Amino acid sequence: MQILIQKYGGTSVADAERIRKVAARIKSYHDRQISLVVVVSAMGHSTDALVSLAAQIHDSPPKREMDMLLSTGEQVSISLLAMALDKLGVPAKSFTGSQVNILTDKNHTNARIEKIETDRLIESLKNGHVCIVAGFQGVDEERNITTLGRGGSDTSAVALAAALSAKECEIFTDVEGVYTGDPNKIPKARKLSQISYDEMLELASLGAGVLHSRSVEFAKKYNVVIHVRSSFTFSEGTLVLPEDQIMEKLLVTGVSLKKDEARVSLADIPDRPGIAAEVFERLAEKKINVDVIVQSTGKNNLNTISFTVPAKDLKDTEESLTSLVSTWGAGEITLDDKIAIVSAVGIGMKSHAGVAAGMFKALAKAGINIHMISTSEIKISCVIDKEHGEEAMRIIHSVFELDAN
Amino acid sequence: MQILIQKYGGTSVADAERIRKVAARIKSYHDRQISLVVVVSAMGHSTDALVSLAAQIHDSPPKREMDMLLSTGEQVSISLLAMALDKLGVPAKSFTGSQVNILTDKNHTNARIEKIETDRLIESLKNGHVCIVAGFQGVDEERNITTLGRGGSDTSAVALAAALSAKECEIFTDVEGVYTGDPNKIPKARKLSQISYDEMLELASLGAGVLHSRSVEFAKKYNVVIHVRSSFTFSEGTLVLPEDQIMEKLLVTGVSLKKDEARVSLADIPDRPGIAAEVFERLAEKKINVDVIVQSTGKNNLNTISFTVPAKDLKDTEESLTSLVSTWGAGEITLDDKIAIVSAVGIGMKSHAGVAAGMFKALAKAGINIHMISTSEIKISCVIDKEHGEEAMRIIHSVFELDAN
Repeated sequence: MQILIQKYGGTSVADAERIRKVAARIKSYHDRQISLVVVVSAMGHSTDALVSLAAQIHDSPPKREMDMLLSTGEQVSISLLAMALDKLGVPAKSFTGSQVNILTDKNHTNARIEKIETDRLIESLKNGHVCIVAGFQGVDEERNITTLGRGGSDTSAVALAAALSAKECEIFTDVEGVYTGDPNKIPKARKLSQISYDEMLELASLGAGVLHSRSVEFAKKYNVVIHVRSSFTFSEGTLVLPEDQIMEKLLVTGVSLKKDEARVSLADIPDRPGIAAEVFERLAEKKINVDVIVQSTGKNNLNTISFTVPAKDLKDTEESLTSLVSTWGAGEITLDDKIAIVSAVGIGMKSHAGVAAGMFKALAKAGINIHMISTSEIKISCVIDKEHGEEAMRIIHSVFELDAN
Repeated sequence: MQILIQKYGGTSVADAERIRKVAARIKSYHDRQISLVVVVSAMGHSTDALVSLAAQIHDSPPKREMDMLLSTGEQVSISLLAMALDKLGVPAKSFTGSQVNILTDKNHTNARIEKIETDRLIESLKNGHVCIVAGFQGVDEERNITTLGRGGSDTSAVALAAALSAKECEIFTDVEGVYTGDPNKIPKARKLSQISYDEMLELASLGAGVLHSRSVEFAKKYNVVIHVRSSFTFSEGTLVLPEDQIMEKLLVTGVSLKKDEARVSLADIPDRPGIAAEVFERLAEKKINVDVIVQSTGKNNLNTISFTVPAKDLKDTEESLTSLVSTWGAGEITLDDKIAIVSAVGIGMKSHAGVAAGMFKALAKAGINIHMISTSEIKISCVIDKEHGEEAMRIIHSVFELDAN
């Protein structure tokens, strides 16, 4: 049995009218004898509504109960979609995470999928039913309801694709696919026909925001082909593939910009083993996510460590560092929240030198100063002044010939 | 372990403020070391909202999917109540029907409870948790979600009380208890301190509307004591008890009035076996509920059957009967939707003669004509003109000395 997985996000099922449209699309696949498992998110902003209901009652609700509450959002949309399919004469059956037995760990509100039982789905598919599965949710071994964190429906879909050895996992969203850059900021951004898992991961974590990172990690691990496409049109979207299936390896696949980060510098701190560990352990304790890190040794064996943190965590970061500096009796803290991180991502960089140089040169030519540089195998990131962020992104997009004609 | 079951209806948990109040009440029991299992309905009119959402998509939604949809209402309220308890420092855990394993038959939207597993609840109670259970819902043996029909949360509560051998089942509602008559219609109506299951069943089916009939049948079968009381005050309500525990057996416990019925007469029909069966089978096929039935034989061996049906089914009833009459080649149909049924209920009637006579006399004295009479061991019903309905109810209430001083 050839199985196709489809996932429809909250915007695609935001109201009765859109649910009917999704049902019509599903019917067109069902009419072609394709065995379908459809994963659905909660309708539009219904999850937000549930969150604010909880906030009226508890400022820090127990996570188990939060999962009990939030999982109702998807349960509403799966039942409505099954009804819409029945209305079109398509036999359909909805399933909660618990009914499919999507087993997760016990980490409420951010659980990880451990195992999926496929018997019940396969039986329903054999009976000619379209299976509608609630995304974002699972159960732990004691049948407590768990959720996978924001965007978790993507992970549900990819995990189901892996468990059912599906041909492909189509992720329907409100954009046409994955672009070389944010089309709202870069009018000349092009839709990519293919992208590798690693590139997608770098772009997702950099805020491209089309796919949930964990779903891409899952897809990479189990070699699931993801097809990101629009639920409003029928045009082909972007395939997210293993690197060896990418036909044309672009030097740079996409550029991205992060504007909600701040830069922190710790200058003149003692140069002895463990100093960096002390700094980042303190921040980890407060669950502050550090992104770019640069360290260098200066004169008199005094060190400088610079890094970026989310701007909202700047105050917490300052407090932690101030106490460290007083413990050491040395060090000077500089904070700057007027920065942006511009990055270029591409698997072609692995085999081509000069990408970084090209990027620095283009920025220099436009008079944009670089404060920090960080590179990985497939990514180059530069920290620059926030005011130049979007200009820098467009320049890099153009320099690496990503602009549409 | 002494266990108490409490059930809070939709009005009691209609918003965050009321949920906090319910939590405060539960805390007062928990502080007294009482082991509590709390059954909750969906918030306010949230079930209606879900029904109208479904109606936007399907005029006759598959019942399995309807249950999937509607069961989310209770899942929202149990999680919010558990959060509110946590906020007050009371350890609480919410459970869906599926998690408790409230096993029902497969009759979606109107399922019957077959078995309840108590292991998980007892374990939680032993750990000092208040258990919050979603009312109205269960699962069939294949773990499809089922619902028990409107008012089914009462049944959930009583069934849990039976399964857990609980001391009592408190049903919290927006009235103070069970009254001798509708307080909105009879200003002198009194709150009863006790009522028997059978009286409650007659009053519930007559529209007193405080308790779901099926819950009372369940309570009678398993000898569960129900305490109907207000969630807005702390005063004692009404105990629904086995007849042998009723201290003072009133001649008449309550009076009720039904105004949404119509009277149907079939005159001059053949007097042969099976005629009545033919009539009521036809109506049963159309799921028309017949209430009072009176049959008499007149001159020339021609029969008259009179009965009442819900006024909304009058047209369907007329169609069925017209076709029957043409088959028989005999019979005359008379319809009257300007009627009311006034009833007096009381287990004291079993041992006292003259109750019916007293009722007829009181109505006659007020110049109210009786069209039909029907009696059972503990109930007398009279069909009268609708315009006299409320007056008749007040007269009977007064004649049997139910008026408050």
